[in-house]
Amino acid sequence: MTRPRLRDLGINIGRFPIGQHNAITDVPDVWVGHKTLVYDAPRVARTGVTVILPRKGEIWSDNAYAAYHSLNGCGEMTGVHWITESGMLSTPIALTNTGQVGTVHEALCAYAQEFGHTDRFSLPVVAETYDGWLNDMEAFHVSRTDVYEAIAQAATGPVAEGSVGGGAGMICYEFKGGIGTASRVVELPTGEYAVGALVQANHGDRIDLRIDGRAMGELLGPEVTPTPWGVRQRVPVSSIIVILATNAPLLPFQCRRLAQRATIGFARTGGMGHNGSGDIFLAFATGNHLPHKNEAAHTVQTLPNHHLNDLFVATTEAVEEAILNVLCAADTMVGFKDRTAYGLPVDRLRELMAT
Amino acid sequence: MTRPRLRDLGINIGRFPIGQHNAITDVPDVWVGHKTLVYDAPRVARTGVTVILPRKGEIWSDNAYAAYHSLNGCGEMTGVHWITESGMLSTPIALTNTGQVGTVHEALCAYAQEFGHTDRFSLPVVAETYDGWLNDMEAFHVSRTDVYEAIAQAATGPVAEGSVGGGAGMICYEFKGGIGTASRVVELPTGEYAVGALVQANHGDRIDLRIDGRAMGELLGPEVTPTPWGVRQRVPVSSIIVILATNAPLLPFQCRRLAQRATIGFARTGGMGHNGSGDIFLAFATGNHLPHKNEAAHTVQTLPNHHLNDLFVATTEAVEEAILNVLCAADTMVGFKDRTAYGLPVDRLRELMAT
Amino acid sequence: MTRPRLRDLGINIGRFPIGQHNAITDVPDVWVGHKTLVYDAPRVARTGVTVILPRKGEIWSDNAYAAYHSLNGCGEMTGVHWITESGMLSTPIALTNTGQVGTVHEALCAYAQEFGHTDRFSLPVVAETYDGWLNDMEAFHVSRTDVYEAIAQAATGPVAEGSVGGGAGMICYEFKGGIGTASRVVELPTGEYAVGALVQANHGDRIDLRIDGRAMGELLGPEVTPTPWGVRQRVPVSSIIVILATNAPLLPFQCRRLAQRATIGFARTGGMGHNGSGDIFLAFATGNHLPHKNEAAHTVQTLPNHHLNDLFVATTEAVEEAILNVLCAADTMVGFKDRTAYGLPVDRLRELMAT
Amino acid sequence: MTRPRLRDLGINIGRFPIGQHNAITDVPDVWVGHKTLVYDAPRVARTGVTVILPRKGEIWSDNAYAAYHSLNGCGEMTGVHWITESGMLSTPIALTNTGQVGTVHEALCAYAQEFGHTDRFSLPVVAETYDGWLNDMEAFHVSRTDVYEAIAQAATGPVAEGSVGGGAGMICYEFKGGIGTASRVVELPTGEYAVGALVQANHGDRIDLRIDGRAMGELLGPEVTPTPWGVRQRVPVSSIIVILATNAPLLPFQCRRLAQRATIGFARTGGMGHNGSGDIFLAFATGNHLPHKNEAAHTVQTLPNHHLNDLFVATTEAVEEAILNVLCAADTMVGFKDRTAYGLPVDRLRELMAT
Repeated sequence: MTRPRLRDLGINIGRFPIGQHNAITDVPDVWVGHKTLVYDAPRVARTGVTVILPRKGEIWSDNAYAAYHSLNGCGEMTGVHWITESGMLSTPIALTNTGQVGTVHEALCAYAQEFGHTDRFSLPVVAETYDGWLNDMEAFHVSRTDVYEAIAQAATGPVAEGSVGGGAGMICYEFKGGIGTASRVVELPTGEYAVGALVQANHGDRIDLRIDGRAMGELLGPEVTPTPWGVRQRVPVSSIIVILATNAPLLPFQCRRLAQRATIGFARTGGMGHNGSGDIFLAFATGNHLPHKNEAAHTVQTLPNHHLNDLFVATTEAVEEAILNVLCAADTMVGFKDRTAYGLPVDRLRELMAT
Repeated sequence: MTRPRLRDLGINIGRFPIGQHNAITDVPDVWVGHKTLVYDAPRVARTGVTVILPRKGEIWSDNAYAAYHSLNGCGEMTGVHWITESGMLSTPIALTNTGQVGTVHEALCAYAQEFGHTDRFSLPVVAETYDGWLNDMEAFHVSRTDVYEAIAQAATGPVAEGSVGGGAGMICYEFKGGIGTASRVVELPTGEYAVGALVQANHGDRIDLRIDGRAMGELLGPEVTPTPWGVRQRVPVSSIIVILATNAPLLPFQCRRLAQRATIGFARTGGMGHNGSGDIFLAFATGNHLPHKNEAAHTVQTLPNHHLNDLFVATTEAVEEAILNVLCAADTMVGFKDRTAYGLPVDRLRELMAT
Repeated sequence: MTRPRLRDLGINIGRFPIGQHNAITDVPDVWVGHKTLVYDAPRVARTGVTVILPRKGEIWSDNAYAAYHSLNGCGEMTGVHWITESGMLSTPIALTNTGQVGTVHEALCAYAQEFGHTDRFSLPVVAETYDGWLNDMEAFHVSRTDVYEAIAQAATGPVAEGSVGGGAGMICYEFKGGIGTASRVVELPTGEYAVGALVQANHGDRIDLRIDGRAMGELLGPEVTPTPWGVRQRVPVSSIIVILATNAPLLPFQCRRLAQRATIGFARTGGMGHNGSGDIFLAFATGNHLPHKNEAAHTVQTLPNHHLNDLFVATTEAVEEAILNVLCAADTMVGFKDRTAYGLPVDRLRELMAT
Repeated sequence: MTRPRLRDLGINIGRFPIGQHNAITDVPDVWVGHKTLVYDAPRVARTGVTVILPRKGEIWSDNAYAAYHSLNGCGEMTGVHWITESGMLSTPIALTNTGQVGTVHEALCAYAQEFGHTDRFSLPVVAETYDGWLNDMEAFHVSRTDVYEAIAQAATGPVAEGSVGGGAGMICYEFKGGIGTASRVVELPTGEYAVGALVQANHGDRIDLRIDGRAMGELLGPEVTPTPWGVRQRVPVSSIIVILATNAPLLPFQCRRLAQRATIGFARTGGMGHNGSGDIFLAFATGNHLPHKNEAAHTVQTLPNHHLNDLFVATTEAVEEAILNVLCAADTMVGFKDRTAYGLPVDRLRELMAT
């Protein structure tokens, strides 16, 4: 039985139209692939890896402008030194669990060399959130092969959401969390552009949850749906990784501005950026092509800064909806030590929003 | 006839209790003073200056840890290089209009020298938002004397809000804007601390305005209350300065974390950080004393980072409420070129929120 | 009697050729103007203002990409929030004394309005170093008119160095300091570009001074040339502002990379970035035109990052030589309270370097 | 036959005294361990891992204030998001080759869990430089076990330099490079403190090399000592990682100031920060104890900012000497594809410096 997306509940965030799939893949040539690891023996796995391949994977040789913003840095996103210095994203992006950033990092280095994407080295982007509540993280389930398979399966079109890929074992607003995505289409004087967000959401106190501004967390308390930790204090670790993509021809400093706007959409769902949270946001823009081995000057386009306002608003909408799509998509999961993270009760939500 | 504050309308933001005055002055020894310039001849003035004096003005000789965050930098806040480098605030803070940052900066330098607060030089903090729609900004109304008077009038206790001080000519969510403040009290394992916010709010599209999460901007459209620019396109300049104070013993990097949380509260009111906005947030913490001429090591306190979560949430609440207090306090104003900025219709708001 | 420049002493820094004037004005359309205030009554003035006008002063309407780096932030450079956010320099740059940043800031705002360079507001760039040892800084000598005159006198061609403009009262390596400039020409696959540096140098301990790597400060100690403070402890305030210009088509993040390289050239002269130093470096690139009111996408050029190495090296050379040109140009000055800052003994230097 | 250290050649950098071992281990309780992998079959290994264990390895439970600075970010240093956010270093530091950051990252995560240093997760600091010229990097020689062994061997006292640990296959100024270290002792009003630097040096053009300011690179050209690449264009990748330690009670922003001063010492040896260089500098300060599970406020010490000048100078000296110690220590090495990197001819250097 498929769970609905947020829009299937009649809840529409913001004012900009969505793209074809309401997904980050609405940005042309942005591919997403998941490898989900869910099994109980020999040790409990509720984890995986999600990869985002800009330019159908040709990002190694045709870089894209990019930048990041950290709302709260209790987390890891590798590769940011070079992104900041060069202004460019030059590898795929992978999302996984906290303990296996290294595994996935090594896998991406190896992949680039094996398949001839680099003649020397790469500085891949690997980000993480913590799934140790549902996943036996110390088992180091994710392997190099899993990363390769996620890449092999990457495609355009609809993106699986919820307990998939890197998001398999995540918890969000004390409901089952995971991967979510959304997109917006913006008409500017210079053309029409897509903005897409993909999140790995593992953050938030239930009490703070807002759906389109309404304080639903208060109405969907433990008496409606138990929290994963029962009467215990909540586990004070959490995080959200946001990946933003656009085909607008933005320069790096403009990507940074988009990345910082993820905070706005995040805040509207009830996000705070707790101390133990790794809330790190990356934005890349494919509107300009930056061949890695170019020896001529790059001729690139950039939007006048005063044209960015609609992109800013669209970004906040896509992030807000992507987070809420996580909650809609992720079904109840039982995991490590028989712990249970319950899915958001979407029927109850629909009723509450209708009042 | 006094306009109500937000709480007088029965609207309570968040879950933490407020301080005595629900103002930044609830942080002990933080003083606020306004000099408001509203007159029509020889040229139209709707401007002024607001000063914040930490430590009853003894901040020059007893510095406080501080840090800032820029959500969108189309604005000015001087003094930030030294705050970042030294970790400390060492001067008062002044808020004024965009064109007179220089005037006020010079005034603070002169004041420090005249009154013996420095034997060499100071690097004062002056921030601004743009009031040129209601104020004939090119007249350079604010004088050195005005700054001195604002300092002389600075005091603890209730803080005048709305069209006062630096906020005299501001516009917020296309209603009359200006100065607002709020505070929260947080109980931590190490003690009870106040967090206060003071904002000079000049930002926002009406359509985006949210009151406690509810989309009130849509319900209070131009047909209810005209926008300042009538049928014209809105003036694409805007800004908000947020000053955060706490008596918690925070170190500079912890102040920066507080400053960045201003974005969360701002976002919940509908803030976006438009391109033409100077959305710059400064946080200082008075919990440690840092005598300027100390020759011994400073012994200071700092909260464990995992204790900061409640301060983060309290910060978002104080910022959200301070912005809404601006709208409640600021009455309709006619200014430069007979332009009118209308005050938020508080009675209508009360009715709408009750439904 | 004119003092020599460094090259007149047979000392050549680095390996890249210099531009026509060995000055920041070798970057096409970059103009420099000084207003120098040196008089003894009614109060002692040893100060002034230096302006740098990119694009012959048309920078307000045709912006240039820019970025800054702060090595040590005990100083002021206004306008950096907007430069960072927008990626662009949109006003002239002015250098003056610490106490009059405000004065000059207001003057630039007024100038932009009076002469129609803005229809709303500007966020000018004003930087400073401290001249209170030789200049009666509390007299606030610099006026709005002085700023206008510096702008009026701005021109291409040779740039006056030493005790001129904003550098009139400065002290560098305990010799007389002030303004200095230098340039380099770099041949890249995409064309030939100029890099120019202009410094207002007020920093450094004599003992650390290096000329082309050689420890000349040790050989030119107080027994050769007295320090300004005689047997007293040196005045622990100091600073250097570096302005870098190039006509290479750099994007903002590439300008930041250039700005950070100023540290390298600075370090080679013996610079440390002392605690009381405001060592702030700004780089702008005129190779792309960015009309302020553009409604189309900007089409811009950018050099491949791996082409920047020679620009980096050229930047370090220009900064190193510009600082040494300050010392060569600035003659002994008697100022406030009959204090004396002695000029570097260039003949002695020439002899020492020949051994 | 042991190669001399720089001081054995009679070359003394700067004016501050050195610590007992002239090594980062002169900072109390800072331990260093290497695992060096040099063998030819089945594939050529010239690589390894170096670990730095603050507080004798108890850094996981007793954190230290820390901060970093990136001069040029073509490299990786993981863990910096949390260091910036929390102000603290909470794991050991490991240095290795570019392709195995992931391997070592995973190893440190696993080690922390196995040995009970964390009950959840860690965000380790792993930095790298590229050794693919001498090392068959695609063989992924470094294993989890190697990291554990480097930790097991970590100790106080003299530190092996040159072609050891993570530095085994490095190249510096086109001589053989690797690991180097140095220290300084500074007497401040508040006490005596050690500052130590450890570098993994893989950077620089021979032509730029300066020894105590003198242009030795020009005198030690290819006709004296061949470059690793013979007549080929030099390999345009390079990097230097600098780790700074002090027992002075610095706060995070003060650590950042130290980290930025590494640039000064680096520049004095001829460093530029080339485009392909990952020049990333981390400083930590052990003077304050920060128990990870503290529930009370931390009481910490901090030096007045104006006391930092001597620490700044000492830092530059230690970095400069650590880099030159690399060149003194690293002997000629033949590696991958029979390539040779020649050791600096120390006898020739001694002669040249004596003239």
